[in-house]
Amino acid sequence: MSKEITARAQDYSQWYNDLIIKGELADYSAVRGCMVIKPYGFALWENMRDQLDKMFKDTGHVNAYFPLFVPKSLFEAEEKNAEGFAKECAIVTHYRLKNDPARKGKLMVDPEAKLEEELVIRPTSEAIIWNTYKTWIQSYRDLPILVNQWANVVRWEMRTRLFLRTAEFLWQEGHTAHATSQEAVEEAVRMLNVYAEFVENWMAVPVIKGVKTPNERFAGAVDTYCIEALMQDGKALQAGTSHFLGQNFAKAFDVQFLTKENKQEFVWATSWGVSTRLIGALVMAHSDDEGLVLPPKIAPLQVVIVPIYKGDEQKQLIDSRVKDLMHELKLAGIRVKYDDSDNSRPGWKFAEYEKKGVPVRIAIGARDIENNTVEIARRDTREKSFISMDNLSEQIFNLLERIQQDMFDRAKKFRDESITPANTWDEFTGLIANKGGFISAHWDGTSETEEKIKELTKATIRCIPLDVQEEAGACILTGKPSDKRVLFAQAY
Amino acid sequence: MSKEITARAQDYSQWYNDLIIKGELADYSAVRGCMVIKPYGFALWENMRDQLDKMFKDTGHVNAYFPLFVPKSLFEAEEKNAEGFAKECAIVTHYRLKNDPARKGKLMVDPEAKLEEELVIRPTSEAIIWNTYKTWIQSYRDLPILVNQWANVVRWEMRTRLFLRTAEFLWQEGHTAHATSQEAVEEAVRMLNVYAEFVENWMAVPVIKGVKTPNERFAGAVDTYCIEALMQDGKALQAGTSHFLGQNFAKAFDVQFLTKENKQEFVWATSWGVSTRLIGALVMAHSDDEGLVLPPKIAPLQVVIVPIYKGDEQKQLIDSRVKDLMHELKLAGIRVKYDDSDNSRPGWKFAEYEKKGVPVRIAIGARDIENNTVEIARRDTREKSFISMDNLSEQIFNLLERIQQDMFDRAKKFRDESITPANTWDEFTGLIANKGGFISAHWDGTSETEEKIKELTKATIRCIPLDVQEEAGACILTGKPSDKRVLFAQAY
Repeated sequence: MSKEITARAQDYSQWYNDLIIKGELADYSAVRGCMVIKPYGFALWENMRDQLDKMFKDTGHVNAYFPLFVPKSLFEAEEKNAEGFAKECAIVTHYRLKNDPARKGKLMVDPEAKLEEELVIRPTSEAIIWNTYKTWIQSYRDLPILVNQWANVVRWEMRTRLFLRTAEFLWQEGHTAHATSQEAVEEAVRMLNVYAEFVENWMAVPVIKGVKTPNERFAGAVDTYCIEALMQDGKALQAGTSHFLGQNFAKAFDVQFLTKENKQEFVWATSWGVSTRLIGALVMAHSDDEGLVLPPKIAPLQVVIVPIYKGDEQKQLIDSRVKDLMHELKLAGIRVKYDDSDNSRPGWKFAEYEKKGVPVRIAIGARDIENNTVEIARRDTREKSFISMDNLSEQIFNLLERIQQDMFDRAKKFRDESITPANTWDEFTGLIANKGGFISAHWDGTSETEEKIKELTKATIRCIPLDVQEEAGACILTGKPSDKRVLFAQAY
Repeated sequence: MSKEITARAQDYSQWYNDLIIKGELADYSAVRGCMVIKPYGFALWENMRDQLDKMFKDTGHVNAYFPLFVPKSLFEAEEKNAEGFAKECAIVTHYRLKNDPARKGKLMVDPEAKLEEELVIRPTSEAIIWNTYKTWIQSYRDLPILVNQWANVVRWEMRTRLFLRTAEFLWQEGHTAHATSQEAVEEAVRMLNVYAEFVENWMAVPVIKGVKTPNERFAGAVDTYCIEALMQDGKALQAGTSHFLGQNFAKAFDVQFLTKENKQEFVWATSWGVSTRLIGALVMAHSDDEGLVLPPKIAPLQVVIVPIYKGDEQKQLIDSRVKDLMHELKLAGIRVKYDDSDNSRPGWKFAEYEKKGVPVRIAIGARDIENNTVEIARRDTREKSFISMDNLSEQIFNLLERIQQDMFDRAKKFRDESITPANTWDEFTGLIANKGGFISAHWDGTSETEEKIKELTKATIRCIPLDVQEEAGACILTGKPSDKRVLFAQAY
């Protein structure tokens, strides 16, 4: 067990922080609640972002960029949305600093440079974007608009955690405009499916697709679709949301279009987003007490090669062979590094790359050269074996695919075993207290009951699964009739 | 001449705005001085960004992300830098809105949510980054740090212009840390060369590499290297800068490292950046009265195919042939679109794609199918010709290369003809008034003279070219001795 990393069993929350910091994904910063994403963490984000961006473009979307600032009068136009975010907004009130006469060399806010209207730093961009769409949309010929934006947003959260909840975070936000309600709903579901495909196939994290209850909806949405993942401690994590916004923003910003039938109608909208929070989900779904475990498809580094040698002669022999292997692996599109730095021992390097979650480690010693073998170690299972150097790239390519699949299968097995039905309140509270995970239970459909359950157990309704079956039953708390089970869990 | 676009000769400044708006690169926004980058403009920026990012990575750099906010106490730590940016800083002072009791449904800044320390929205990130580097750097083994960041920054400019000067803009900022002064200077020059290579070979805009006078230096730099481009109206535009920061930021943030010789020393720094301003340079360097002219290498769309037909039968014949051609062109990596929309005539489409600067237009009619030809039109020269459909992708590929080269050559010819020596004050002022462009003249080396010349002529010293020759002469204004010519120009 790594000495630098707190064991999960000892302190799960500290384990998570240790992984992020020691795994060099991110650092705390001098700004309250904001983090620095370090190069290794950013390379991971780049791989995730590039794949998502490709999937957005493959489904017909284009990128654009809208201002960081939202004038207060626009921000408050859609009242529910404004109300939902008002309590966590960073506000720009001034546009100049000046020398502080009382403190030489220091600056102060210039009281004469007060803005006439305060600017909200975007916590989400519906307001500024729909105010813009007003000028872009006149007729049905201007629809649909399928725009995405990669941006930073700010939500002034009181309790922050690296990646999971930071005051500033990076995300993408899709904002689409449609001529019909049906088309907008289809778009919202399409993007939910894109998210699910990405999180499952690239991050190797299984998700449940569902729809939120009114209580848990995005402020200003008619319906919020979501994907919910399960962390190793049995808590759920909302990994992405896609909102059907109805005509709420079109009405707030008076965005109407001329239909084919020559009538004026309000435009239908969706918005959908995932953020750097996904990195938190990734870390908590797969990692162990030795450090990060990253899925090959998005790992910044897929393979590291470490030489084991005594003296220059052995080193040169290994270097020369590794040069060819590196060439072969890179040609096969594998992200590989040869770490022959002489300032640390192999054992230290092994621990270091385990901590950073590199999926495959290859060790090569002088005897391996003789035997035409290498030692490979899988990060996920920590299994070691010797394999032939022949067709190395093909073997490694296949191994990376197997690791990707095994990681997903393990996470899915754990997730599936963590969905438990509860039919009585005692069963429900027992599961919350002892097992965690998702609890599939009947609910009477009221916000009051949902809130009461949250108060009593800290569990919330994560979603009504999209594939839910009709089933007559009685609410777990009130005993009132219910026609389907919903998924409860404590959540991040 | 396009009716929508003001002619250059009539109003150059309005021409520029028309190109940006009608060419659909960007829009004004509801936020003072901020623009919306529209999908077409953003696709152009993506192509530029991706190529630059590749060049940064090829020279050993990695990306990271630092907070948007800079606490005022950090911002003011490097005094010259702080002084340089203090007058144009957006300041966050509060973190919450609340319901306005006087106006139902409206919000107000919650006076109880005032920050203890104000946060500056980064106008540039040296302060927050060097405060972070302090924790990353202990010994020479931690150096160099070669980090880049793609980000939005805010500078509260009083007079803004789309792309050229906006309150918020997108850019990249490299921030590197080195063990020696020499290594840092080499890095600053290396990145200047990367910028020059990108702007010349990808944007087809020739640049002069030089170093700024102390007056024009980045606030906090020891030396500012720059690339200067020339616009069609004879004004210069600074296209990128690379700064040798000496130990200024290391001293301000107390960033020291243990040398190989076991001594504590302050770290040496560079920073370098280019921004969405480059799009302004691109537009003004190449475009004409019909609209944008974009260089093929970064054009979002390189080729558009427009069908010319009467009736469904001809349309189907053309569709079927174009399907094969599209496949062939895409296989060759060419960004091509077939615009067979039936809601506008070919002539309208021609004008539309000319306005948007698509490098090559292909028109195909029924007779072309018979003759196995297509009509191609170059956007840059507006020349038309018929070519065979055989090996179309190869012909188009070569044509795109030729256009790229021709655009550079034309811009370079214009630029070279616009560098004029002046040996007397009368010559100098005559050139400023009548010809514009770069004026190569002697200067006595003092800031006073430089400022006086600026006052009198609005011309500034754009740079001391890196390849300047020693030459004895007399200052154009004061007659004092000078050992080299510098380049003056009026500038954006």
